[in-house]
Amino acid sequence: MRKDNRVFDELREIKISPDFVSNIPGSVFIEQGKTRIICSATVEYKVPHFIKEEKKGWINAEYSMMPGSTSKKRVPRERNRVNGRNIEIQRFIGRALRNTFNLKELEGITIHIDCDVIEADGGTRCVSLNGGMIVLKKALEYLVFENKIQRLPELEYIAAISIGVKGKDILIDLTYEEDSMVDADINIISSEKRHIVEVSAFAEKNSISKEIFDKVLNIGIEKNLKIIEKIKKF
Amino acid sequence: MRKDNRVFDELREIKISPDFVSNIPGSVFIEQGKTRIICSATVEYKVPHFIKEEKKGWINAEYSMMPGSTSKKRVPRERNRVNGRNIEIQRFIGRALRNTFNLKELEGITIHIDCDVIEADGGTRCVSLNGGMIVLKKALEYLVFENKIQRLPELEYIAAISIGVKGKDILIDLTYEEDSMVDADINIISSEKRHIVEVSAFAEKNSISKEIFDKVLNIGIEKNLKIIEKIKKF
Amino acid sequence: MRKDNRVFDELREIKISPDFVSNIPGSVFIEQGKTRIICSATVEYKVPHFIKEEKKGWINAEYSMMPGSTSKKRVPRERNRVNGRNIEIQRFIGRALRNTFNLKELEGITIHIDCDVIEADGGTRCVSLNGGMIVLKKALEYLVFENKIQRLPELEYIAAISIGVKGKDILIDLTYEEDSMVDADINIISSEKRHIVEVSAFAEKNSISKEIFDKVLNIGIEKNLKIIEKIKKF
Amino acid sequence: MRKDNRVFDELREIKISPDFVSNIPGSVFIEQGKTRIICSATVEYKVPHFIKEEKKGWINAEYSMMPGSTSKKRVPRERNRVNGRNIEIQRFIGRALRNTFNLKELEGITIHIDCDVIEADGGTRCVSLNGGMIVLKKALEYLVFENKIQRLPELEYIAAISIGVKGKDILIDLTYEEDSMVDADINIISSEKRHIVEVSAFAEKNSISKEIFDKVLNIGIEKNLKIIEKIKKF
Amino acid sequence: MRKDNRVFDELREIKISPDFVSNIPGSVFIEQGKTRIICSATVEYKVPHFIKEEKKGWINAEYSMMPGSTSKKRVPRERNRVNGRNIEIQRFIGRALRNTFNLKELEGITIHIDCDVIEADGGTRCVSLNGGMIVLKKALEYLVFENKIQRLPELEYIAAISIGVKGKDILIDLTYEEDSMVDADINIISSEKRHIVEVSAFAEKNSISKEIFDKVLNIGIEKNLKIIEKIKKF
Amino acid sequence: MRKDNRVFDELREIKISPDFVSNIPGSVFIEQGKTRIICSATVEYKVPHFIKEEKKGWINAEYSMMPGSTSKKRVPRERNRVNGRNIEIQRFIGRALRNTFNLKELEGITIHIDCDVIEADGGTRCVSLNGGMIVLKKALEYLVFENKIQRLPELEYIAAISIGVKGKDILIDLTYEEDSMVDADINIISSEKRHIVEVSAFAEKNSISKEIFDKVLNIGIEKNLKIIEKIKKF
Repeated sequence: MRKDNRVFDELREIKISPDFVSNIPGSVFIEQGKTRIICSATVEYKVPHFIKEEKKGWINAEYSMMPGSTSKKRVPRERNRVNGRNIEIQRFIGRALRNTFNLKELEGITIHIDCDVIEADGGTRCVSLNGGMIVLKKALEYLVFENKIQRLPELEYIAAISIGVKGKDILIDLTYEEDSMVDADINIISSEKRHIVEVSAFAEKNSISKEIFDKVLNIGIEKNLKIIEKIKKF
Repeated sequence: MRKDNRVFDELREIKISPDFVSNIPGSVFIEQGKTRIICSATVEYKVPHFIKEEKKGWINAEYSMMPGSTSKKRVPRERNRVNGRNIEIQRFIGRALRNTFNLKELEGITIHIDCDVIEADGGTRCVSLNGGMIVLKKALEYLVFENKIQRLPELEYIAAISIGVKGKDILIDLTYEEDSMVDADINIISSEKRHIVEVSAFAEKNSISKEIFDKVLNIGIEKNLKIIEKIKKF
Repeated sequence: MRKDNRVFDELREIKISPDFVSNIPGSVFIEQGKTRIICSATVEYKVPHFIKEEKKGWINAEYSMMPGSTSKKRVPRERNRVNGRNIEIQRFIGRALRNTFNLKELEGITIHIDCDVIEADGGTRCVSLNGGMIVLKKALEYLVFENKIQRLPELEYIAAISIGVKGKDILIDLTYEEDSMVDADINIISSEKRHIVEVSAFAEKNSISKEIFDKVLNIGIEKNLKIIEKIKKF
Repeated sequence: MRKDNRVFDELREIKISPDFVSNIPGSVFIEQGKTRIICSATVEYKVPHFIKEEKKGWINAEYSMMPGSTSKKRVPRERNRVNGRNIEIQRFIGRALRNTFNLKELEGITIHIDCDVIEADGGTRCVSLNGGMIVLKKALEYLVFENKIQRLPELEYIAAISIGVKGKDILIDLTYEEDSMVDADINIISSEKRHIVEVSAFAEKNSISKEIFDKVLNIGIEKNLKIIEKIKKF
Repeated sequence: MRKDNRVFDELREIKISPDFVSNIPGSVFIEQGKTRIICSATVEYKVPHFIKEEKKGWINAEYSMMPGSTSKKRVPRERNRVNGRNIEIQRFIGRALRNTFNLKELEGITIHIDCDVIEADGGTRCVSLNGGMIVLKKALEYLVFENKIQRLPELEYIAAISIGVKGKDILIDLTYEEDSMVDADINIISSEKRHIVEVSAFAEKNSISKEIFDKVLNIGIEKNLKIIEKIKKF
Repeated sequence: MRKDNRVFDELREIKISPDFVSNIPGSVFIEQGKTRIICSATVEYKVPHFIKEEKKGWINAEYSMMPGSTSKKRVPRERNRVNGRNIEIQRFIGRALRNTFNLKELEGITIHIDCDVIEADGGTRCVSLNGGMIVLKKALEYLVFENKIQRLPELEYIAAISIGVKGKDILIDLTYEEDSMVDADINIISSEKRHIVEVSAFAEKNSISKEIFDKVLNIGIEKNLKIIEKIKKF
């Protein structure tokens, strides 16, 4: 049993408040346990210079933590500095979301997915992706409504889950406290077709055997199906 | 009558959700109409180098808008850039809050007041100050509780209100739409003793006569008393 | 009586050396007591991106202190850093100058007003504005001469003055030493029509009562008329 | 058969020139096909502020591409800018190398691993890690020799390999050209004990089924054993 | 004969206004023709980290052009950018001034020499050095007066002159207009003992023969003696 | 005799490995003693904005040291900082190379010359220039081959040599160790026609008499002829 009375393979409660910010194409306040994130989607009718020659659109993800989001220590703003962890995380989110449909259908358009962590208690990169998936869908619906794209692209929904390995135990959806105690921490993004989109395994204390890695993957794929079920309702 | 059915000297509804972020010294989600801001207070047991020789403490305020906070256009993050408006606003907030009690009573301690705009519909600098006042009080109580300061300093509460002048009309607590139509926009910070702390008058379209300026000041002082009454409850 | 033998409501001597730098549209070396500032105006035949859609021109003000401008401590250059105080001051100057005539008459043109403090002895933001007003006029005359605009826009002259409150005393045009001793410091920009353009009151030690604030405003408006008289000659 | 006549599961030739730069603790010029990287290890007798309270040492990895390293387009230097991809890669390398031994044995010391890409033809992050592993070992030997640490820590060697999935084919050690044609690109870091250290799977075109992912992992672990055999000789 | 009626080897008039800024250790307004520069010297009782282990002092020179200093085009401020030309020039000035006396006599002290160009009409780096030499002397006298150093170090005075080569003609002390027409531009710093301190020859259009270079050096050394005579009076 | 058994006017061995990086217009690995540098030339079919109005091309040089290039201390990367010495050196290289032919023949084209120091043992700026000369020629040949320019411009080859003065001794091609012991250090760029292109003399310890300076120049011109002979073969 875990400190918050969950069994090892139990997700924290997910609470989704859609349209948290009014009048923008997509906005959601997503809470998973005490990890709470505002995701917003906004659109721009141009694409970054590096894809200009390809006839497609783009999804740009950005991730940041609010100064008071963690009780440990104030997080300084990124003014005049760059936080390597934030860059790594937003690349993780952007790459995955760009994989959910054919970007050719978004030609000439950029969708910005902004994930701002209000309160951090573990798994912020996964919860950001899950919220990002919701607002990405909202932004696409907005673009159809505004006649900027002709039809909703065929989406393959994805979700992300963090899984910890401690000895032989596999814990899912880690809190901050749990995260700092496990031997390895694996983030899995997988799709509604049970396909694997991205896996980042960080064995911080001990490396992971192939057998355990395999179990983790199976659990991750299953749990992500449950999350996808939830986020598909919005 | 105004678009949102308020009379000219009517405040928008103020909604205060305390302890919005858990486990930090002070946190509040303050909403004034559709302007919605998260203010947090965190503490650090050292002071900036420029006051090291004086035996006192410091209050550092920072202000920022979330990328999706305005429906007009995505606000780019301040990574590697500095937004002059934000700097002006946070100096306005910090200066005023440092005036609410004797900083000698905070020797060796910095309180960080972070104001992050979730949704902007006019008056964000004033609402930030009002929220900042609440969390500053919370942080001081926290410091007493933690035995870092001996007693709660004697606070002179302050509040801020934005007032617009359009021809002969005086409108209080402007929405974004109203703000862009008025001739002049005056922000008044005043205290529970009816004292003036800071006045910034920006006559964007036409300058203001001394007579009207005087009326504006009187109204501002009165309305701030009402706001102070509200924020003192938390 | 004050240290420099002035009575409370006495301005320091103002000395204006026009065309201090040759061959640019506007340049002045303005000295108010020992505060000495070079203001220059240069023109550019394009406007900032954020007003591109409006058919008007722009005035951009910048303020900086030379490294040796204060005897207290060398002022480090802003290379790779940003000085919040400078940004606040230049926004104050720019906003006020943009209010002196209809920017529609400057369509497609930006006038840069640069204020560089050679020596600082209090009131630099006000003296910068006063010098800036002179060179702005020069730049407009230059544009008429060069046939870039058809006629000199109708200007409403403005000036700025700093006023200190110490107990019941009201001191005008503060030196650096006085500035650090007063209870409150109020900068007033007002126009030749006695209209108020911008008021920034910083009550650093004690807040100000409405009665004193009122007196200060009246004095400020009167003194600014005297300054306007002086700067109008150039 | 592949363009360079390799079979699908064939590694490119690996050429290792040790001590490429003289007089520093560790240096190697590692070439894997036409991907050519200089890795260097230098030591500093202090640790970053964020681990100061833990009694351990640190490994800092940095990755950069030389301006002429790719024939496609000159890579601009990172002066005054930050390249998100580089940051992601160097975090990947540093995290893995910090996992090869107990950092407690390096108390108070930082080893800097610098990976500079001279020529890029696919797999630069993996080749950097392999070269980094060699120079990390050299640096540890240097520290023993200099009596800065008492004995060589017990190392668990790791290596990295990039694997591509195209339809049902699995290609290992991708060239740049191959990399841009595969459906998914998986980087696997695993250890001499066949343990998984980090897996980053980027399904850029199509997501990957669990079955294929599993095969990829098995191949990756085997190929990394072969690489480890090579790098252990230095 | 030249445009400004000088003969080829004629210096422009040099005008020196000492103590231009009051209350700092050294300040001068130096004008050479229409090139006009404010040089200031300030002191700091610590040295840069890179000489901490040597028992000596330091001279730090900085050079910048005011935005309105040239009639050609406004010079943007260096906020958030770095101007390579400025860095090259200030390194040229600092290196030469550090050579005028034994820095051991300045142990633990840094003298900052700031050169700010008010108006630029050619030769700004040389005029900056000449003004810098004056204020460096003033700063040393100040340090003796303040008992921070025991005696005035033995100074070998230096001066700088720009010389142009156009065909067979040698022109000294170039104006901006002349500078853009010559084949080569040589800046010579030499000392009162006729020693060469630094020579930078930039053959922008055609390279220079050894014979002409030799003549230029001889003229430079002679003219610098005349300048040294002038600056020694202050 | 010198530590490495060279006589005073003896060059270190120069080793040139052309086409060190494949598939870019020009690349060379140049070694002069233990100073080892990769120079690369790449082309871009546009010119910097500041020469847009002139009908010519441009040569942009950049210089940087790899983190492990010196055994003394790791060289931090220039991310988010600027290294003044690097800027000075790359300006020195670029200016000289732009003087080797008529840039009108390169209209609309920029050639980037990147010099990256792999190992530094004195004279890196001179060796960079020598390597840069080789790859500049390669880039011009490439442009002819690609029909981007009609013919190879008439080149006046240049080379650079560092010379030290210690008492009455003149040492050429200084190692790092020698460089730190000489009284003065002179870098001479001269051409195959024995013309002087740039001379930077830094008298770090004592200034140099005209007589010695003259000898140094003569030796420099002769030695550069030998270097030019070598680099012309590639």
